[in-house]
Amino acid sequence: MTYGTVTAGVVAELRAIVGEKSVWIDEERLETYAHDETSAEEYAHAPEAVVLPTTTEHVAAIVRLANHHHIPITPRGAGSGLSGGAIPVFGGILISLERMDKLIDLDLDNMTITAEAGMVTNDLAHTVAEHGLFFAGYPMSVETCQIGGNIAENAGGGKAVKYGVTGRYVMGLELVTPTGDVVWLGGKLAKDVSGYDLKQLVIGSEGTLGIVTQAIIKLTAYPKAASDLLVLFESPRAAIDLVPRMLRQGIVPTGIEFMDRLSFQTSCEYLNETLPSENAGAMLLIEVDGNDPAAVEADLLAIGDLCEKHGAIEVYVAEDRNAVERVWAVRRNIAEAFKVASPVQSLEDIVVPVASIPDVIPELERLAATYGMQIPCYGHAGDGNLHATLVKDPAMDDATWLRNKDACLRELYHFVQGLGGKISGEHGIGLKRKKYLPDVTNPVEIDLMRAIKRAWDPNLIMNPGKVFELDAGP
Amino acid sequence: MTYGTVTAGVVAELRAIVGEKSVWIDEERLETYAHDETSAEEYAHAPEAVVLPTTTEHVAAIVRLANHHHIPITPRGAGSGLSGGAIPVFGGILISLERMDKLIDLDLDNMTITAEAGMVTNDLAHTVAEHGLFFAGYPMSVETCQIGGNIAENAGGGKAVKYGVTGRYVMGLELVTPTGDVVWLGGKLAKDVSGYDLKQLVIGSEGTLGIVTQAIIKLTAYPKAASDLLVLFESPRAAIDLVPRMLRQGIVPTGIEFMDRLSFQTSCEYLNETLPSENAGAMLLIEVDGNDPAAVEADLLAIGDLCEKHGAIEVYVAEDRNAVERVWAVRRNIAEAFKVASPVQSLEDIVVPVASIPDVIPELERLAATYGMQIPCYGHAGDGNLHATLVKDPAMDDATWLRNKDACLRELYHFVQGLGGKISGEHGIGLKRKKYLPDVTNPVEIDLMRAIKRAWDPNLIMNPGKVFELDAGP
Repeated sequence: MTYGTVTAGVVAELRAIVGEKSVWIDEERLETYAHDETSAEEYAHAPEAVVLPTTTEHVAAIVRLANHHHIPITPRGAGSGLSGGAIPVFGGILISLERMDKLIDLDLDNMTITAEAGMVTNDLAHTVAEHGLFFAGYPMSVETCQIGGNIAENAGGGKAVKYGVTGRYVMGLELVTPTGDVVWLGGKLAKDVSGYDLKQLVIGSEGTLGIVTQAIIKLTAYPKAASDLLVLFESPRAAIDLVPRMLRQGIVPTGIEFMDRLSFQTSCEYLNETLPSENAGAMLLIEVDGNDPAAVEADLLAIGDLCEKHGAIEVYVAEDRNAVERVWAVRRNIAEAFKVASPVQSLEDIVVPVASIPDVIPELERLAATYGMQIPCYGHAGDGNLHATLVKDPAMDDATWLRNKDACLRELYHFVQGLGGKISGEHGIGLKRKKYLPDVTNPVEIDLMRAIKRAWDPNLIMNPGKVFELDAGP
Repeated sequence: MTYGTVTAGVVAELRAIVGEKSVWIDEERLETYAHDETSAEEYAHAPEAVVLPTTTEHVAAIVRLANHHHIPITPRGAGSGLSGGAIPVFGGILISLERMDKLIDLDLDNMTITAEAGMVTNDLAHTVAEHGLFFAGYPMSVETCQIGGNIAENAGGGKAVKYGVTGRYVMGLELVTPTGDVVWLGGKLAKDVSGYDLKQLVIGSEGTLGIVTQAIIKLTAYPKAASDLLVLFESPRAAIDLVPRMLRQGIVPTGIEFMDRLSFQTSCEYLNETLPSENAGAMLLIEVDGNDPAAVEADLLAIGDLCEKHGAIEVYVAEDRNAVERVWAVRRNIAEAFKVASPVQSLEDIVVPVASIPDVIPELERLAATYGMQIPCYGHAGDGNLHATLVKDPAMDDATWLRNKDACLRELYHFVQGLGGKISGEHGIGLKRKKYLPDVTNPVEIDLMRAIKRAWDPNLIMNPGKVFELDAGP
């Protein structure tokens, strides 16, 4: 596979499409778009040009141009991804959706919002909150991420136990296909079997099957009551053991978030925040919501009782929205805090059946001891989705770290596979996990994915180098 | 496209795979498998052989054999489909999953059940009900349909307003691909972005992308309280107008079912049942559920008040489970009752944004008058999914009926498209709506579907003649 390059002629063609000032080729700006939020410099790669379209027609014209010249395209939202999905590994044209951030339609009768893909998720959240509505599938990076990126990664969030992830709320999307056609998939419909569910195929395909330019998001009425518990445990095992036990009670919390000591401490230091945490080796942050305050209260009491009966050191009820927001800020900022405190690391995203999460903790402890690294862990315990983070010991030399990290990940991924789990629950395969996917995936499944990719993108220009290799296989 | 035929040699090969008694070629039995529940003899077509595998390996071996000889395969569950999806239009081999009905695993810790595709949905429901659990995505044909068919059609049901349709509850499935490979897609996972969401692509693909042989179904704890209202209105318009108004209140009923007078009367006669219905031109059947009886009661009262304020003639609360079941039986049996009372008809399945359903009723009235037919209507009003049924006037000659039906459907479908709707919400395109899909679908979307079909099924043997034509296009 050899790709064309962005020549001066191509730059002129791009400028003819989007205008002089919306094509950047200066090195400093290109360097800014060489990264996403994935740690590790090894993944960085600058594009040859950054293009900032403002309409779907711009995007389609750029894609047709790229097909003509066989130039790779990398779509990019906020660059808040954690698997290198927005890194232009083959150079070429990076299409940033950041200027396509307009509200198209807020439809209160159908409880939907239609927005361009570059709208920041928090802006969407604020727009609909004024009407007592919310987008239940938003991810932890809500302050910076964009709707298009949420869709490309099928992002999860802190409310997924009860509400599910992004994909459940995407009712329709406008796609620029890898050959530059424009098509709306889905609509403001509660159900639809008029042909294949291509919309759902695009969701989570990490920008390899086209560029989402607009989306219709289903909104949910804000629950009238919500309450949060912060529960302290002596050890991660004690905290995690309780999670499947809690779900078996028939109570469905909005979310059950887990943080081990190193995780919450690192985030607290980063935020200059304190949480009650004496003797705590781990915490669960549990939210319950509903329309009936008495029912929410009753659920919360039942959960609190269960925790106290099964090894909790302390159960705190977050007294007001300010206290709740402070605890959630600690949880949301762990990834960022670790990036600052331990820049040489690998943030993982394993997901297992929720009844199996207690098995994961001792394995992480074993792997940490075997490979001479710390592996703090936090994440969406109620979804079986844990962000174990491999952290390099400063005393370890770089070559050993890279070797050990690789061996440790392979062991971890095989262990997860043995539990019926997968290597990514919400961050995606992207660039970072591409080489590991075949280790833990039936080759038939990868061949089926490749077949779709080749059928939709015959020139293989759409976000190449992500998810799976294309040179091998049919 | 020319297909191979089922020669004596092929029959011998099939018998070598599944055993002598599991391959049927006698005419009487073949005739039984020439139909599904779609009315209209015009669709009937017998297979050349019916094969009844009992294992996934059987299914895979049959598919490999069919590929070798280029023989078309039609997968079939209970044959309860309403779009001709299980009719073997090109003859060939019909694979009936009816003997693959085993329970594989009931996992109470993860709240999942794994079953073979041929398990009757009601059998699954009864198995899990003993544990206080239910499969929230079951369709109206629950008494006869099978899990595999539910998945092939992404079936809807009476609880979709609150709980969504089948696809939301399918966590994993075992697929025999069109080339005879076996692969598990998904798993007991709350979230998963480890590659494309092929599982969701297969759901609703009407057996054209492979044969589902097993599935993992997510279970939900049975709500502790549920209550039903039967609300009578003077006219269909009065009933339907209330539906978007109700949803805007922020109450989420389990389901909002609509029946016009001809629909409930026909079903009552068929069942020899009576419902309170004096002067009623239409009814809404509204269910609310939850864990808190007081909250359910409060929601029901609020809905009842709203109905009375906006034109309801009468609001009945179904007093006990027996009364509730009687009303639901009337609703569930409308399709069957119409088939008996008016065998020459076309049962439709349009879906529109829920705020637009009031616009549908006057259009149906206009079309009925224009084309000289009755168009009774019922369905899942809370999902925007209405089963308008075109019924032939006995006085109309057959040729006029066929011409008028075709013209009426084209007008209806264009009207639905204009509202942002689709021509099938839960029954599928199948054979019956295939010729209409291109009328109301962006050709780019159909080309994307075709590209997947060709990439996965190079010999085009898997349920050919359904959803879209393959001779045209790329």
